[in-house]
Amino acid sequence: MKKILNDPFAYADETLQGLVRAYPQYYRLVEGTTRVIARAETPKNGKVGIVSGGGSGHLPIFTGYVGPGFLDAVASGDVFASPSADEMATAIRAADTGAGVLRLYGNYGGDVMNFDMAGDLAEMDGITCATVLLADDVASASLAEREKRRGVAGMVLAFKIAGAAAEAGLDLAGVTEVAQRAADGCRTMGVALSSCTVPQAGKPTFSLGEDEMEVGMGIHGEPGVMRGKLQTANQIADAMLDPILADLNLPRGAQVAVLVNSLGATPVEELFILYNRIADRLEAEGITPTRRIVGRYATSMEMAGVSLTLLPLDDTLDGFLAAPAECAFWKV
Amino acid sequence: MKKILNDPFAYADETLQGLVRAYPQYYRLVEGTTRVIARAETPKNGKVGIVSGGGSGHLPIFTGYVGPGFLDAVASGDVFASPSADEMATAIRAADTGAGVLRLYGNYGGDVMNFDMAGDLAEMDGITCATVLLADDVASASLAEREKRRGVAGMVLAFKIAGAAAEAGLDLAGVTEVAQRAADGCRTMGVALSSCTVPQAGKPTFSLGEDEMEVGMGIHGEPGVMRGKLQTANQIADAMLDPILADLNLPRGAQVAVLVNSLGATPVEELFILYNRIADRLEAEGITPTRRIVGRYATSMEMAGVSLTLLPLDDTLDGFLAAPAECAFWKV
Repeated sequence: MKKILNDPFAYADETLQGLVRAYPQYYRLVEGTTRVIARAETPKNGKVGIVSGGGSGHLPIFTGYVGPGFLDAVASGDVFASPSADEMATAIRAADTGAGVLRLYGNYGGDVMNFDMAGDLAEMDGITCATVLLADDVASASLAEREKRRGVAGMVLAFKIAGAAAEAGLDLAGVTEVAQRAADGCRTMGVALSSCTVPQAGKPTFSLGEDEMEVGMGIHGEPGVMRGKLQTANQIADAMLDPILADLNLPRGAQVAVLVNSLGATPVEELFILYNRIADRLEAEGITPTRRIVGRYATSMEMAGVSLTLLPLDDTLDGFLAAPAECAFWKV
Repeated sequence: MKKILNDPFAYADETLQGLVRAYPQYYRLVEGTTRVIARAETPKNGKVGIVSGGGSGHLPIFTGYVGPGFLDAVASGDVFASPSADEMATAIRAADTGAGVLRLYGNYGGDVMNFDMAGDLAEMDGITCATVLLADDVASASLAEREKRRGVAGMVLAFKIAGAAAEAGLDLAGVTEVAQRAADGCRTMGVALSSCTVPQAGKPTFSLGEDEMEVGMGIHGEPGVMRGKLQTANQIADAMLDPILADLNLPRGAQVAVLVNSLGATPVEELFILYNRIADRLEAEGITPTRRIVGRYATSMEMAGVSLTLLPLDDTLDGFLAAPAECAFWKV
């Protein structure tokens, strides 16, 4: 896959610069950094801050979701690499308005280590921090070992819900509780059809045969649970939905948010073809897809493939998911 | 490139079905058709109707832009194929509330022929029709032969402006005049990095070497103006901007809308890298990018590549471009 870039080592920085220049109404670079983005307009004092962070190369995740009703600040690393603890601490400080800051991010070793250190740094400045780890990828570990699962596209729904809860005026404990509930509910399963290329590596991370797909592959190319022949859209929808439904064990009458997400290259046409089958299957299970989100919300640059996320909704989560929010990438 | 589908011959129909099921708040299938989409809620009587149409495989174009403040109805064909005159006439009837209907679509032979016939059919029903052809692709013919140019990503800006003008209550002549002004102003230049695959063909439409790009290629793979080695992001930005600036011949102090569009597979990260250079160049020319739109707005499924559109703005066009609108794909 060909990439449009100048210097592979400047890919992340130039991306963020361009983002801020194109959308100054939403984003600003925090002074003295090249990798920490905060809301263009500082939120009012007393609003709980929400920060996230992680590697670049997943837009709109993470930085794209900075905005009113969403995240307050994000630290980005190089492509697929964790930001530094210092950058994360800068993001925490940028998000703080005196009511504490929730660290809401994906369960990856480097991010956890650095966000822990960043929290220590911020607490020395008197900022109270809480943490919710996002671990929605059902392919990455069994239900019995949920704490080992990685965070993938479901992170977006947790960002949205936590952001709305903070905007609604909940305190740090309240926002954390709602975010944890969203994190606990989210389940995602992905299918990769091709690799992407990390700019600094200059070649695809992995290879898949012309007639192959890999079920359960991670968003950085982490190995999945099954590699096999490319299947039909209906079969792919089932391959994503079955393990999620098994994991959630939802009763008839349940309401869910459904996120059908392209990993990058796969066109939205094909997401809608998948959605047909997903809607049929949910209907057969007596589950209502109350909120439906179809598009590119969490990507791995030009990787071909898709993911499906379900999040069981109660009135509180649904209300926060549907609440207004402003950023360059959100549309429900 | 691998595709997620069931039956290649059902690709367009299943896409539209999924779109309507996922976003019933915006879209409905017009009764008795599988290819004509109208606004979920019928606009108030007396609003000028706006219809568009063309081949499938370009989402969000065309159908994605149906909604309040945008298009009223769209007829879609098979992938990269014109809809029938009957389907277009159905779309015109669905868009009519008694104030006439503007046909606003891309300058392609099949679409022009069928929309002309559709207009004749609709006028037999007493519906007054007007037409504005969109022909923004500077690569497809010289300025002296502008009437031969094809419509590409700039169509989106014309849809938005015409839709807002109709929503604001202008009559058919007024909406047509504003739409024509937007159409006259738009200039687009694209660069393709890879082909896409038409489902029914089952293989890529064309091939480009691993180190090649083609400047000026059309959104269906129509030949461009130059094939050469893949260049840097800054060089690619210049290759798109130079012919547009030459064509527009803007004075210092001009205000423009800038649309940096992925043709599908190219990630938004790389659009923002391009935007940096475009912003620098415009600044050097004394041109202000008043409205900045970066993302996937007009695609060729999984084609890799980008396009750049500039539209000179006056207060009227800018106001209509920035006016509120509702659909699943628009965010400025």
